[in-house]
Amino acid sequence: MGNLTNDFNEYRSRMNSRIMETSNTNIKRFFALDTTTYAAGALDVKTKEMLGLVASMVLRCDDCIKYHLEKCRDEGINQDEINEVFMIANLVGGSIVIPHYRRAVEYWDELNG
Amino acid sequence: MGNLTNDFNEYRSRMNSRIMETSNTNIKRFFALDTTTYAAGALDVKTKEMLGLVASMVLRCDDCIKYHLEKCRDEGINQDEINEVFMIANLVGGSIVIPHYRRAVEYWDELNG
Amino acid sequence: MGNLTNDFNEYRSRMNSRIMETSNTNIKRFFALDTTTYAAGALDVKTKEMLGLVASMVLRCDDCIKYHLEKCRDEGINQDEINEVFMIANLVGGSIVIPHYRRAVEYWDELNG
Amino acid sequence: MGNLTNDFNEYRSRMNSRIMETSNTNIKRFFALDTTTYAAGALDVKTKEMLGLVASMVLRCDDCIKYHLEKCRDEGINQDEINEVFMIANLVGGSIVIPHYRRAVEYWDELNG
Amino acid sequence: MGNLTNDFNEYRSRMNSRIMETSNTNIKRFFALDTTTYAAGALDVKTKEMLGLVASMVLRCDDCIKYHLEKCRDEGINQDEINEVFMIANLVGGSIVIPHYRRAVEYWDELNG
Amino acid sequence: MGNLTNDFNEYRSRMNSRIMETSNTNIKRFFALDTTTYAAGALDVKTKEMLGLVASMVLRCDDCIKYHLEKCRDEGINQDEINEVFMIANLVGGSIVIPHYRRAVEYWDELNG
Repeated sequence: MGNLTNDFNEYRSRMNSRIMETSNTNIKRFFALDTTTYAAGALDVKTKEMLGLVASMVLRCDDCIKYHLEKCRDEGINQDEINEVFMIANLVGGSIVIPHYRRAVEYWDELNG
Repeated sequence: MGNLTNDFNEYRSRMNSRIMETSNTNIKRFFALDTTTYAAGALDVKTKEMLGLVASMVLRCDDCIKYHLEKCRDEGINQDEINEVFMIANLVGGSIVIPHYRRAVEYWDELNG
Repeated sequence: MGNLTNDFNEYRSRMNSRIMETSNTNIKRFFALDTTTYAAGALDVKTKEMLGLVASMVLRCDDCIKYHLEKCRDEGINQDEINEVFMIANLVGGSIVIPHYRRAVEYWDELNG
Repeated sequence: MGNLTNDFNEYRSRMNSRIMETSNTNIKRFFALDTTTYAAGALDVKTKEMLGLVASMVLRCDDCIKYHLEKCRDEGINQDEINEVFMIANLVGGSIVIPHYRRAVEYWDELNG
Repeated sequence: MGNLTNDFNEYRSRMNSRIMETSNTNIKRFFALDTTTYAAGALDVKTKEMLGLVASMVLRCDDCIKYHLEKCRDEGINQDEINEVFMIANLVGGSIVIPHYRRAVEYWDELNG
Repeated sequence: MGNLTNDFNEYRSRMNSRIMETSNTNIKRFFALDTTTYAAGALDVKTKEMLGLVASMVLRCDDCIKYHLEKCRDEGINQDEINEVFMIANLVGGSIVIPHYRRAVEYWDELNG
């Protein structure tokens, strides 16, 4: 793993711990729901992670993109497949997605480095 | 087919024809790219249409949702699968997606009626 | 009640029932969370409904606006107060909110008619 | 003028009058600012109306699009020019803009009918 | 005060000064309106700042979130209250808000440290 | 040129090169379309770059704003003109645009320094 992935995961873990210390019951339920939603069901985890990725890209959330890119790599998604997710995100979300796509390519490279 | 699907498809076809009459070369290229992006490639059409659907839902575009719902039904996506796409859209996009989810359920029912 | 409020509430109730029939466990949990979030807690219901309203306005979701306007009226929010919520929404969200503000004024008038 | 333009202008005028009756000082100032912003200055009205149109399209606000289309026509913007504004909106905002572009073409046709 | 708050406030002050030097009359009016909107009126400042915060969170603007968090702390909003604002923002805006919520918790901690 | 412009242009060039190495045909077509869209046509480049800038500002994409600011400077847009574009962006997009406007002013100053 490289710097981008380490920094992202360290910050995310630290703040999620802090959220578990300080938040209320509804917030904890919302986080739990965030986990169960991506579990295997009628759709497999690979498909769900691609859905999470494309949604994160069109909404232009860099941290969400990083999280789902890492899950996509864990699911064995290859370069041709991820390119097609990237293309749908660029097309649907428009050229405004391109700066996020650049950062996604950089992160994907590091994950696969 | 029922009223919602007929009205949507009639209007969409009519205006797309008008766009082909009035638009410029770049717009025509953009529409062509919109078609080739969802063709089978490294990912199959079923997966791509679910990606198009979830992106349309989090961006809250009713017409885009209708279009991809119809394609999803053509690809044989079942109720359990579409529910999991709906859930990812609601979770990622938030409760603000719910009114669009309601209309999606109504349209999906008509497509499967 | 007038036509706008009746139509909105009838459609909302009907589709929510349909969602309860067709959806999965996670979606039902998400809807349950949507209810508990607005219950009285450290903040009273009146404040929470204004928070829901302003969030709905800046995200430009007409159905969400209608829902929270009705709750705001139930909580006894007066014209001067609702105007200040409207202003924050217009300022933060910009002139793009104005068409939704127009429809909010129409709905608010009917609720108070 | 046809049905779309009449309906839009009638509703907009009626609700703006109601807003002037019911709103507070800050809201009135915000509406005044909305007017002065598009007045001729360092940029001419034609350029400003194209700026308002493209912003409205990428933010996907149909009523805002209608308003600026009418102003664009008043400024003598021709078909080739409006097409280039439409293309920038589609490119920057993505395919999610297309349904709004369809309605814009329909409205533009009626304005020029 | 810690690093996050100092850096944010220093940059904000410096650039606001630069804006007052370089901008035009309409921009200055817009900034003035931004100030008067949050002044005490029919709603108290505490309520208005919570409205500004939730709107900033669902629109996912980190700098706006920081600004309103600081005002919320000045108004004496406690942990239970801020958690309920955070929850409404997460629910309405969806999981895409979570990275901004993490940064909000970090900033809130520093404000209260 | 100063640090902000150098850093932005270096990163953009490097990642665009990487995209040309790793992406698929549709993505390359999308990037080509992004270039041809801003070429002189019925509208001149100056007008198109202002359209790209205002669209980028209301969608709150800092990198897109930087790119179009640089093009606007290349086209000889002066301070009074850019202020009017900034004002339309602030008005249409709301106070949520202000943090992006601050960064735009900083970047514009560096471009003209």
